[in-house]
Amino acid sequence: MIGRVEIRTRGKGLHEITAKVQALVEESAMRDGVCTVLIQHTSASLTIQENADPSAARDLEAWLDRHVPENDPHFTHTLEGPDDMPSHIKAALTSTTLSVPVVDGRLGLGTWQGIYVWEHRRRGSVRRCLIHLGP
Amino acid sequence: MIGRVEIRTRGKGLHEITAKVQALVEESAMRDGVCTVLIQHTSASLTIQENADPSAARDLEAWLDRHVPENDPHFTHTLEGPDDMPSHIKAALTSTTLSVPVVDGRLGLGTWQGIYVWEHRRRGSVRRCLIHLGP
Amino acid sequence: MIGRVEIRTRGKGLHEITAKVQALVEESAMRDGVCTVLIQHTSASLTIQENADPSAARDLEAWLDRHVPENDPHFTHTLEGPDDMPSHIKAALTSTTLSVPVVDGRLGLGTWQGIYVWEHRRRGSVRRCLIHLGP
Repeated sequence: MIGRVEIRTRGKGLHEITAKVQALVEESAMRDGVCTVLIQHTSASLTIQENADPSAARDLEAWLDRHVPENDPHFTHTLEGPDDMPSHIKAALTSTTLSVPVVDGRLGLGTWQGIYVWEHRRRGSVRRCLIHLGP
Repeated sequence: MIGRVEIRTRGKGLHEITAKVQALVEESAMRDGVCTVLIQHTSASLTIQENADPSAARDLEAWLDRHVPENDPHFTHTLEGPDDMPSHIKAALTSTTLSVPVVDGRLGLGTWQGIYVWEHRRRGSVRRCLIHLGP
Repeated sequence: MIGRVEIRTRGKGLHEITAKVQALVEESAMRDGVCTVLIQHTSASLTIQENADPSAARDLEAWLDRHVPENDPHFTHTLEGPDDMPSHIKAALTSTTLSVPVVDGRLGLGTWQGIYVWEHRRRGSVRRCLIHLGP
């Protein structure tokens, strides 16, 4: 089965999509298999991270922002704004595709794991993920 | 087929699990397909790296430790110790899921490639990977 | 179906393989499914990046080169040359496997996305990717 998850982000940071992906798993009625997630953008990415304490997500975002700062004088790809080139680098350092085994009709994530869209543009955007559920 | 690989790590660094994953491929009797590996933790991760020279693994570990150091004064998520926040960042920069084609009953890795659990906590822990083998 | 994509790189940087992977999808006659790509090397990697403006690829390459420089005095794994250890670190920070959903016989990439082999050795090499196409 092919499904889609779409979210409207309103700025940089992690946006959890676990419940939306799990809803597709249930819609598929699949018991065991693999859920493949692709984010169809190069200025946002995917990550599986801790879903318990929001301070972890904030520190993660801040670390990446300090290490891939805007206005790096080395950048030449600057036409789309100071947050554009950092967003491509951040996407390359994190994930564009994820593959999560499904067991007994549930995403096989660990207790504290969630699936996140990681927005790297200041203004955010509508972000589209393509989901495949297969045996 | 769903399988599990569990290892006890005793400190930071790479712990090879290739043989355990290959054993599951053999147990499944699958000839061609995909082996999906998910580590069910956010303070350890996965990587496919060189399995020939241990100095490469040591340099890799040391590089990551220098670039995501403990006791960074910017961190606020510090309740679980100085190695907790760095471990989440290291996990985000490496991999939580991997997908390895299986050919003729063998993981299709290159000659020098091995699958590793990358422990990011000082004391280590029991680390669980969920494995899916499918067509 | 198992397929292979082989390219000859002639130096560091991104080498697009989207058309070659799409050709395998067409050869398989698969409508919906998943395309799994594994690069069988530890000194080159995979990424999905913007395929529109070459300046983005150049800035990305330059950023990674500045952050994982050759001749870092901390490195001990230096027998194969100054670009060897950086190449393993760069591979660990990017991707060795990718999973791309296939929809209606086409790789389900976003409009501006391409699949790239990322060469990390100065001289380049023949780089082999193993491709699996499954339901």
